[in-house]
Amino acid sequence: MKIYIAQQNYHIGNFRENTRKMIEAIDAAKRQKADLVVFSELSVCGYPPRDFMEFQDFIDQCYAVVDEIRQHADSIGVIVGAPHRNPREEGKDLFNAAWFLYENEVKAIVHKTLLPTYDVFDEYRYFEPAFEWNVIPFRGERLALTICEDIWNLGDNPLYRICPMDQLMPQQPTLMINVSASPFDYDHDEDRKEVIRQNVRKYQLPMIYCNAVGSQTEIVFDGGSMVCDASGQLVKELRYFEEDYWLADTEQLRADAAVAAPVSAHLDKDMRVSKVSDPSAILPYLTKTDNIAQIHQALLLGIRDYFSKMGFTEAILGSSGGIDSAVTLALACEALGPKHVLAVGMPSMYSSAHSVSDAELLSRNLGNRFELIPIKGVYDAFLEALKPQFGDLPFGLAEENIQSRSRGNLLMSLANKFGYILLNTSNKSELATGYGTLYGDMAGGLSVLGDVYKTQVFALARYINRFGEVIPENIITKPPSAELRPGQKDSDSLPEYEVLDPVLYQYIERRKGVKELVALGLDEALVSRILKMVNRNEYKRNQFCPIIRVSAKAFGVGRRLPIVANY
Amino acid sequence: MKIYIAQQNYHIGNFRENTRKMIEAIDAAKRQKADLVVFSELSVCGYPPRDFMEFQDFIDQCYAVVDEIRQHADSIGVIVGAPHRNPREEGKDLFNAAWFLYENEVKAIVHKTLLPTYDVFDEYRYFEPAFEWNVIPFRGERLALTICEDIWNLGDNPLYRICPMDQLMPQQPTLMINVSASPFDYDHDEDRKEVIRQNVRKYQLPMIYCNAVGSQTEIVFDGGSMVCDASGQLVKELRYFEEDYWLADTEQLRADAAVAAPVSAHLDKDMRVSKVSDPSAILPYLTKTDNIAQIHQALLLGIRDYFSKMGFTEAILGSSGGIDSAVTLALACEALGPKHVLAVGMPSMYSSAHSVSDAELLSRNLGNRFELIPIKGVYDAFLEALKPQFGDLPFGLAEENIQSRSRGNLLMSLANKFGYILLNTSNKSELATGYGTLYGDMAGGLSVLGDVYKTQVFALARYINRFGEVIPENIITKPPSAELRPGQKDSDSLPEYEVLDPVLYQYIERRKGVKELVALGLDEALVSRILKMVNRNEYKRNQFCPIIRVSAKAFGVGRRLPIVANY
Repeated sequence: MKIYIAQQNYHIGNFRENTRKMIEAIDAAKRQKADLVVFSELSVCGYPPRDFMEFQDFIDQCYAVVDEIRQHADSIGVIVGAPHRNPREEGKDLFNAAWFLYENEVKAIVHKTLLPTYDVFDEYRYFEPAFEWNVIPFRGERLALTICEDIWNLGDNPLYRICPMDQLMPQQPTLMINVSASPFDYDHDEDRKEVIRQNVRKYQLPMIYCNAVGSQTEIVFDGGSMVCDASGQLVKELRYFEEDYWLADTEQLRADAAVAAPVSAHLDKDMRVSKVSDPSAILPYLTKTDNIAQIHQALLLGIRDYFSKMGFTEAILGSSGGIDSAVTLALACEALGPKHVLAVGMPSMYSSAHSVSDAELLSRNLGNRFELIPIKGVYDAFLEALKPQFGDLPFGLAEENIQSRSRGNLLMSLANKFGYILLNTSNKSELATGYGTLYGDMAGGLSVLGDVYKTQVFALARYINRFGEVIPENIITKPPSAELRPGQKDSDSLPEYEVLDPVLYQYIERRKGVKELVALGLDEALVSRILKMVNRNEYKRNQFCPIIRVSAKAFGVGRRLPIVANY
Repeated sequence: MKIYIAQQNYHIGNFRENTRKMIEAIDAAKRQKADLVVFSELSVCGYPPRDFMEFQDFIDQCYAVVDEIRQHADSIGVIVGAPHRNPREEGKDLFNAAWFLYENEVKAIVHKTLLPTYDVFDEYRYFEPAFEWNVIPFRGERLALTICEDIWNLGDNPLYRICPMDQLMPQQPTLMINVSASPFDYDHDEDRKEVIRQNVRKYQLPMIYCNAVGSQTEIVFDGGSMVCDASGQLVKELRYFEEDYWLADTEQLRADAAVAAPVSAHLDKDMRVSKVSDPSAILPYLTKTDNIAQIHQALLLGIRDYFSKMGFTEAILGSSGGIDSAVTLALACEALGPKHVLAVGMPSMYSSAHSVSDAELLSRNLGNRFELIPIKGVYDAFLEALKPQFGDLPFGLAEENIQSRSRGNLLMSLANKFGYILLNTSNKSELATGYGTLYGDMAGGLSVLGDVYKTQVFALARYINRFGEVIPENIITKPPSAELRPGQKDSDSLPEYEVLDPVLYQYIERRKGVKELVALGLDEALVSRILKMVNRNEYKRNQFCPIIRVSAKAFGVGRRLPIVANY
């Protein structure tokens, strides 16, 4: 049997466009004489639709798309992802389902059993787990069709009490098909292959794995759909971070399997925490080139999809001559084209001479427009307006924040006037410690580096320069500074990033507390200070824009902490 | 048997303070010769602890508190709420548990079965449902101890497949005890009583119901713990919106039951949507005095607890002479005391003459400090700085937003300089339609009115004036205006609030789509326009501060929609 794998990028709620894409793929599959087309999880509406699942009208529209696709599923089988209304009196209103369409009929509807409800996932909020499991007979094959997380319990995952493939095996399937929306993070990039191999080894069946691709607000789906023969041999890996298609031949798969050797593999039991535990291994791990190269691709896709799906083309950002704005700018120019990115230098009396010249040189290298708007007039006007209240009180945090917010306001004014989206340039280390100004440098519609630690930002800069200098060397080598008061350096307020980042990683990605970190040999005062900074600044992160997620634990929807708390 | 109900207000993660409070109550119970003290759900750490449940150190600290409480549970039984680590290999790491402590030992640990995972609740993210159900024998009684949602399925709630009380009944309990953290909203304020009555009628057992009180970031727990005899008679209702204690006597309960008549009641099957469906009934329902009086109490508690639990005492807000800031200011003065609230008038060239005089009169009535900071200088400085870019382009949205952000920046500067928390004054109708400026009037640490529709804000103003004029009549009667350009009125950009609010209620609280609303007789163009406004502005709400929740569906953690979407 010939199976056409369609790895596509959907737009949540954009039923017309998603339908057009799927029908185009069905037509291509027909031209290639495919027996079956496979689309990814919830392909009809895009994943994750979140609370749209609670709107009957949204579900009605999903049904209408399934109906339209059904008209095209004549002589070809089609597997699409769409919610299915629970016909029983028992259980929640919906199932997360894969619909098998053929001969212009709905031949089978498979319900997802394992509903991820952790990190960025909330499936138990919307869906009822499957009540029953049935193999689908089709043209001589017996399809064991499962949805994403369903293959992530091999019987030993403590999150779940059921193993869907175990339920299906008594019905003697001949082929596993899994339709997924499995997101990227650099901590778990190899897990998916391992899970597929483990399933193949356990059940001795070939696997067709169709994943979604594309960025959905903060979550990046990286594609990389796979075909594995019954011996565990990876026959095909589709492209990462872009749409791709492939025609798999099950006859060929079985022929290949005969000569391939079995593959041995081990599956991590808990995917919810990151893997690196040895403290001295963290920094090299965070900055290793493989991870940085993947992060680079994920960020480009994240920027590109945010703009195209929101219907914008033009970006603006503040270019301070520092490393964060330089890396953000370079990524934006690569993602959107330099003609679509405006960099604005906004020096104050505390800005160093090199801040403007470095930023100008950067934009010359990148070929994007650079404008200069000094903030002195605005800053002075604020101080003048506040003179009756501020009186002779000494310069302090308020005055620093006024500078930062003046810049935020200038950028937003340009964005409002000319239709730019403001890209935020804060990094994960700053967001963690609250080293940023609400409505100032924390302003923006999309955070590019909010899931990238400062030490990783430096590595990204080096990576961007891998073919020659794009980001001027001076931007990479000068000591980081917010330049909000004379001679200020980040290290006045924060530990050195080489010390800070591994502690943050332990706390955020691995959820270690003070005692656990001290037991690892870290200094108690340092650790307490850092963890308190992180907890105290939850209120700032709560008002932050979406962050392109690249790690196992990003700030935002995947990390939910009370703002009013004392811990 | 005598049971001491302790309805307390906990601080999430503040283990020392929570422990002190509970021990104080145990001592009081002992003095009153109680046999048993009952605390609410997760009393040890406060509810909801959210992702703190993923930190081993946090769980360790919960265990340490249980251990300390155990030392005081000598001759008296104590029921405390705390997470319990799952000792099995199967299932998630934790149970949401009620610990029964007596004779300085842990005598029993009851696990929650029904884990609410909708609206503001995420329990399935953290907890495994109970595997087993056991009655606790204690001093002649047989206690059927359940946790919150466990009594919300009487066998016909489609959200759940298990009914915990049905599991317990074969063990012949004599008394139901339910420990809860059940939040307030004006749409469901009577449901709790109905559920308790229904349980009592079904199982013919008296019920001791202990609820939490206090505001946790956005969620307001309203107390109102109850004691019901076996006939369904409500014997005692503890206070709402404040801490309270009561000693129930089970002998007395049984004596009372003999003479009381059975109560008939009906339980709504789905608590996830609001109740009012008749379009013409919505506006009277939103503004009826009972609801407004409850909202008033909830907002006062919400403000008070936000400040006390964050460790702040002083509030600041912009006072424009409009109704939203007037109601916010009156509530802040009542919650924190007028000496702790600074109102700032920030007129521009587009402000009406009455805007400042009305605001001044309001502060005279309330007795709080009022200061005036004209924004013309700051606004002009922004336009001057932007002249090279803006050139001769006509006045527009960018210039309006500059005014709003200048005000936001001035308020934040004062907040930073003097340690105020900025109270946000946006209402739910504005937030829904995106009629507000990010980093401008949308700035602030806490939103007081973000879950109160504009028509309800007017009703709140009338309610605040119930004993005499606090909010000047002119503030209530003048047409709403943002005053960002000459002669501007809200009605230039938005439908009249009497038309807008019921449609918003249908969409937000009842999740109705365009087709469903048109079927109710509403104009399609109007409805489409309003729903598009709501959807298009998700990105603004995503950067908004916590909102004190008073309705069945508030913006914020309880409503989760994708930002990048097309629906």
